[in-house]
Amino acid sequence: MVSVPEGFLFSAVSCGIKKEGKLDLGLIFCERKGTAWGVFTKNTLKAAPVLIGKTNLKEPFHRAIVANSGVANAATGEEGIKRAEAVLKDLASLLKVKPLEILPASTGVIGEQLPLDKILPKLSELVAGLSPDRAEDFAKAIMTTDTFPKIAQRTTKDGVKLLGIAKGAGMIAPNMATMLAFILTDGYLKKEEMRKLLSKAVDQSFNRITVDGDTSTNDTVYFLASGIKEVKDGTDFAENLISLAKELAYLIVKDGEGATKVIRVEIKGARNKEEARAFAMSIANSPLVKTAFYGADPNWGRILSALGKTGIDFDPQLVQIFLNDKPWVKELSVQTKEEDLRKEMQKNEVSLVVHLKLGKVSYEVLTCDLTEDYIRINASYRS
Amino acid sequence: MVSVPEGFLFSAVSCGIKKEGKLDLGLIFCERKGTAWGVFTKNTLKAAPVLIGKTNLKEPFHRAIVANSGVANAATGEEGIKRAEAVLKDLASLLKVKPLEILPASTGVIGEQLPLDKILPKLSELVAGLSPDRAEDFAKAIMTTDTFPKIAQRTTKDGVKLLGIAKGAGMIAPNMATMLAFILTDGYLKKEEMRKLLSKAVDQSFNRITVDGDTSTNDTVYFLASGIKEVKDGTDFAENLISLAKELAYLIVKDGEGATKVIRVEIKGARNKEEARAFAMSIANSPLVKTAFYGADPNWGRILSALGKTGIDFDPQLVQIFLNDKPWVKELSVQTKEEDLRKEMQKNEVSLVVHLKLGKVSYEVLTCDLTEDYIRINASYRS
Repeated sequence: MVSVPEGFLFSAVSCGIKKEGKLDLGLIFCERKGTAWGVFTKNTLKAAPVLIGKTNLKEPFHRAIVANSGVANAATGEEGIKRAEAVLKDLASLLKVKPLEILPASTGVIGEQLPLDKILPKLSELVAGLSPDRAEDFAKAIMTTDTFPKIAQRTTKDGVKLLGIAKGAGMIAPNMATMLAFILTDGYLKKEEMRKLLSKAVDQSFNRITVDGDTSTNDTVYFLASGIKEVKDGTDFAENLISLAKELAYLIVKDGEGATKVIRVEIKGARNKEEARAFAMSIANSPLVKTAFYGADPNWGRILSALGKTGIDFDPQLVQIFLNDKPWVKELSVQTKEEDLRKEMQKNEVSLVVHLKLGKVSYEVLTCDLTEDYIRINASYRS
Repeated sequence: MVSVPEGFLFSAVSCGIKKEGKLDLGLIFCERKGTAWGVFTKNTLKAAPVLIGKTNLKEPFHRAIVANSGVANAATGEEGIKRAEAVLKDLASLLKVKPLEILPASTGVIGEQLPLDKILPKLSELVAGLSPDRAEDFAKAIMTTDTFPKIAQRTTKDGVKLLGIAKGAGMIAPNMATMLAFILTDGYLKKEEMRKLLSKAVDQSFNRITVDGDTSTNDTVYFLASGIKEVKDGTDFAENLISLAKELAYLIVKDGEGATKVIRVEIKGARNKEEARAFAMSIANSPLVKTAFYGADPNWGRILSALGKTGIDFDPQLVQIFLNDKPWVKELSVQTKEEDLRKEMQKNEVSLVVHLKLGKVSYEVLTCDLTEDYIRINASYRS
């Protein structure tokens, strides 16, 4: 059961952008003048809703988030901007707020225009359906190739609530990717505090996951506060926010396209954070490592090769590898029976620790395995 | 029929490293004191034969190349070096040359030691089998997941012959990858000339192909000249060398693991070579683009998104895309009927031209599609 932060209402409708009457347009309404912040993709091809969202975040107050699935409204030029603005204008009028107070997001096929003839006639139904009980419907409305809605919740010691709703599936990579996340709280926060809190939470969560190394045109994380409750313990709030963002990031990887397992890749003993991250991402993005995990093949040479392809120096002789805490490789020799390693790799949660013995810095990323289903899904995504 | 440059003999045997009695150890012998150069992987985890090859290239003369498949002799530490040297020592004695005059190469599983008990007893049979007619056997002996041996030939206007033998399949990426190539000529060339010629040829060929973005520990290109014929027209020789290297690179992509088609990605109208290369490689390495080509799905948004994920500025409105010379996208609109585009994508040779209209620089790379068979091959490579 979703326990919703105070001051928020949710709705979702089916406009017919997605097939078979699935929910494809969602709305979050903040009953008061809320405060918001957001972070966006670093892809230089930014979708229309990303460009509009960046502008609208300059407003002091925010009242709503509207998100559609099926069409990304990316690579759609000026017409794409116009159409997104047309949705915001009509919606603002129905909600009796300013268009600039609404934050938009889209996900789906790139290069297609928003079908206004399908969306605009549905907006009054969308607004009429607003209710505190429909957070899960909203979560369903933003799904594309996701197989389950992604929701996480926290309550701080002060009783401040946090609710996170996300969608992911493919193209999840460093700097996020076809990934939308909406984090709501009834705590009172200033915009500048929200910026710092969100930046730290995203760095610890969404920027440490990868599904296929591709990054999207539409990645967006919005953080919206209704401001009803006082945040007394800021540290506790920050910890809850990070923990919630990490849970959403985990759910996204777990639902990676075609994935059968989540792989937690941790680099230990690196000289600095940049190198630790480069090593971790090189392993997590290597198709050869990811297919070996899929096949439960303890082919550790591919892990060392992925370290090497960073071009960063390390001493293979010093490297120690652990699989689910079992010693795997030390001094270039296998430490555990192959059959036992295979069994560990067959689990649907696998922890891979690679200790470089060069320094004291650690860095962890989440990835998933690469399977035939990834190919099947992406060879025919539009059809 | 292979027309072999003068002064070279070939041999191959089955040592039992690979299963079912397949050829897995090959030898090229130069009957005179040959001259050689080589280029190697940029992966910081360099295989033992790469380290030894780099050292041996400092010698003035070279007499042989020995290459095995099945075991990469990478991540094998000092023991790996010792074992490779043991092979060179015994082989040198049989060939009556110096061990330093032999250039080694290996390909196969990383992290396993060379099985000397299988290799050393076979060396006399290997040497006894030397013949000018066995270049194709050598080509077979270096195959791993390759489905066909890769051989290319050229003859210059001066009658100087060039013969190239390569293996590829997976992990082919910028800076080469699990890729071995041996280029032989009967022309007379000085070491310094060979260095320049090879560097240019590799930049135009092997460094412009990618299969899965992974790079290997063992990539090696050796260039060996028997020096029997005079190279009168150096420009003609260089052109033949580049053309031969490009043909080998093409064959490697064509035989990319699980690939059903070769995709020629050309960036036009870039501001400079670095940006052109980054854009081309981002498209060529994108799993989403590669699966779309596999599914013959003209999803051009993925191509624009791949441009954007480089982080380099471009104007999507200006981008023009051509598929097999047919106009595909202009001003963010599709120019050709989807059914016709699908038909073009179904061909097993596809040309993708992306014109950025930012400048005058072009860059071309070859890649292949990403299929379920890539996953199948790599989820169980060792078994």
